[in-house]
Amino acid sequence: MTYETDPKRDLVLERIVDVRPNLVWAAWTRPDYIKQWFTPVPWQTVDCEVDLRPGGIFRTVMRSPEGQEFPNNGCYLEVIENRKLVWTAALTEGYRPQTAAAPFLFTAMILLEPHGNGTKYTAIVVHGDEDAAKKHADMGFHDGWGKALDQLVALAKTM
Amino acid sequence: MTYETDPKRDLVLERIVDVRPNLVWAAWTRPDYIKQWFTPVPWQTVDCEVDLRPGGIFRTVMRSPEGQEFPNNGCYLEVIENRKLVWTAALTEGYRPQTAAAPFLFTAMILLEPHGNGTKYTAIVVHGDEDAAKKHADMGFHDGWGKALDQLVALAKTM
Repeated sequence: MTYETDPKRDLVLERIVDVRPNLVWAAWTRPDYIKQWFTPVPWQTVDCEVDLRPGGIFRTVMRSPEGQEFPNNGCYLEVIENRKLVWTAALTEGYRPQTAAAPFLFTAMILLEPHGNGTKYTAIVVHGDEDAAKKHADMGFHDGWGKALDQLVALAKTM
Repeated sequence: MTYETDPKRDLVLERIVDVRPNLVWAAWTRPDYIKQWFTPVPWQTVDCEVDLRPGGIFRTVMRSPEGQEFPNNGCYLEVIENRKLVWTAALTEGYRPQTAAAPFLFTAMILLEPHGNGTKYTAIVVHGDEDAAKKHADMGFHDGWGKALDQLVALAKTM
């Protein structure tokens, strides 16, 4: 499971975490868990729908500290239990092309590998061009996805 | 393999053809074959690249009768030999969101079922909204995909 990433168009978060892959997988694939870790506080994920199969919907609704809601309707592309989860914001349910206005679109690949008693966690987020990747980075990708992963790990330890 | 299609956003071509599913599959997945049937004459498909796996590239270059070339870089989503082929123009190689300007984006699902000595052939083309589906229909979807299928069947009979 190695990927050649494109440093100009991809954003990558790679970390060893001390919870096993099956718990990380559960956190990423169960709506009740996703709502607890997916957005760094004080943002919230107030709704979530998961149809865990290629072509199935991955829908979340994020709420800002000011109460504004941001719905996201994505689509799963690859689902390999405890190993690999791929979803994209460029398609919606049933692989239908996205029409909702978004500042940029991306596809996320979440790769999990056993590492001792923990997990080597790799998130690769691919964008259409450098401009989209830069916008995502400027919006705080590394800080945001890093804090969310902290929340995921804290939650996994309670499972 | 039944799909609920959306009559406003999907275009569908369904036909019984008198060649077996494995030959239709070969015609859809080998570049040397694709170049022979993919575009209704006098249009030509002058180049083609196939990386037949989810996330792999499906690239074609079409040439108009006037000699203008139209490159298309799509991405395979599902590959089930002799049964189901799904690819989208909304993503490129490695599930990267599309950036090339296009009048509309679509995802194509090609479904093959044995039918006597032939094949029940179903192409479902899903669009983001009604406007995109209408543009595709106005550009001659049914006539174009129908003529291309005639060419595919004629080619398959020579295999």
